[in-house]
Amino acid sequence: MAEKGVKVFGMWASPMVIRVEWALRLKGVEYEYVDEDLANKSADLLRYNPVTKKVPVLVHDGKPIAESTIIVEYIDEAWKGGHPIMPADPYERAQARFWARYAEDKCNAALYPIFTTTGEAQREVVREAQRCLKTLEAALEGRRFFGGDAVGYLDIVVGWLAHWLPVIEEVSGASVVTDEELPLMKAWFGRFLAVDAVRAALPDRDRLLAANKARREQLLSSA
Amino acid sequence: MAEKGVKVFGMWASPMVIRVEWALRLKGVEYEYVDEDLANKSADLLRYNPVTKKVPVLVHDGKPIAESTIIVEYIDEAWKGGHPIMPADPYERAQARFWARYAEDKCNAALYPIFTTTGEAQREVVREAQRCLKTLEAALEGRRFFGGDAVGYLDIVVGWLAHWLPVIEEVSGASVVTDEELPLMKAWFGRFLAVDAVRAALPDRDRLLAANKARREQLLSSA
Repeated sequence: MAEKGVKVFGMWASPMVIRVEWALRLKGVEYEYVDEDLANKSADLLRYNPVTKKVPVLVHDGKPIAESTIIVEYIDEAWKGGHPIMPADPYERAQARFWARYAEDKCNAALYPIFTTTGEAQREVVREAQRCLKTLEAALEGRRFFGGDAVGYLDIVVGWLAHWLPVIEEVSGASVVTDEELPLMKAWFGRFLAVDAVRAALPDRDRLLAANKARREQLLSSA
Repeated sequence: MAEKGVKVFGMWASPMVIRVEWALRLKGVEYEYVDEDLANKSADLLRYNPVTKKVPVLVHDGKPIAESTIIVEYIDEAWKGGHPIMPADPYERAQARFWARYAEDKCNAALYPIFTTTGEAQREVVREAQRCLKTLEAALEGRRFFGGDAVGYLDIVVGWLAHWLPVIEEVSGASVVTDEELPLMKAWFGRFLAVDAVRAALPDRDRLLAANKARREQLLSSA
């Protein structure tokens, strides 16, 4: 007999896992959170996600689902009644999925090297990341949130930027999302983080800062 | 006033574009196909997909959508009445999306180097690709198609393998999907290619073979 209820296997500092927590909180779904040590994964995690062995994994009444963006769509479909996550219109849904994919594939790849570079090399990386985010920012034009008047799928997918990127900027000494270069995105950071369901799930900033500082030092010393 | 109707911007040899044609044919949607010269893209393509500039692009009543898997989901949602592409159950839908992502991210990456290698290096690459496809094959267990009794989303996403992989095998001198190593997938190749809507959209095998031969020679000589 499958266990009833909702469980999330995550890792506290992961910007992907928080998408699942945001979606569940927006829907008002109670869940149990299990923090994984990724260097020593639990038997449950390996059993629930034997293919990629990654977090997040959502387990709903004993049935596991992996991949954060797929889990977010599942949550929207499984708890139809609550806060709508995907746009209702098929064309709008396709656009939200397109921008989510763009942010994942292009902007995340453009942002990552900020963490491992310094000086002029880093300034070039920052300009490239800004170009990518500028393109993404177009989807915010005339809207409070990417989802329109309320937080939706694309807000959840790119929302990690609002909390994690300022930490990465502080640790790396880089400025990416500024009032001058990305004013719509900067203003959206503030609005997004003010949403109750969003704020309630955020990891502690000092702890995130310490973990990212340690990681950058390690990456730079092994480069 | 936006132009009415359905247009697909593609490239005849692309295994991604055909997903869109399969989805439209399964739904019975009439469409105009525009073949692009990717070395000299049309002004229409650049206007409809200024972000990634890639094919396929679907234009429905003047509104463009890019990214093949996103287009396939859109087609299923915009023409609800016809052949169902996504599973009806949210959990089954999440599983189909998970395997589609796995095939895209892991198996395609594992298959690609077959094209650029020879000898022992190629044999190692083939074993790695087989391991990836073996994992994917589990989703076929006990089913005629990945979608169950009929072709569905995952069949459309991985279906290119049935027509393109034998060509790549012939050009590269490698054997990947064999009766011994991947019997369920091999049998599915035959069933999938026998579906009318699938067969009708396939590019000519000899032309595909010639194009892939030329490409492999070019890649090997520049390696």
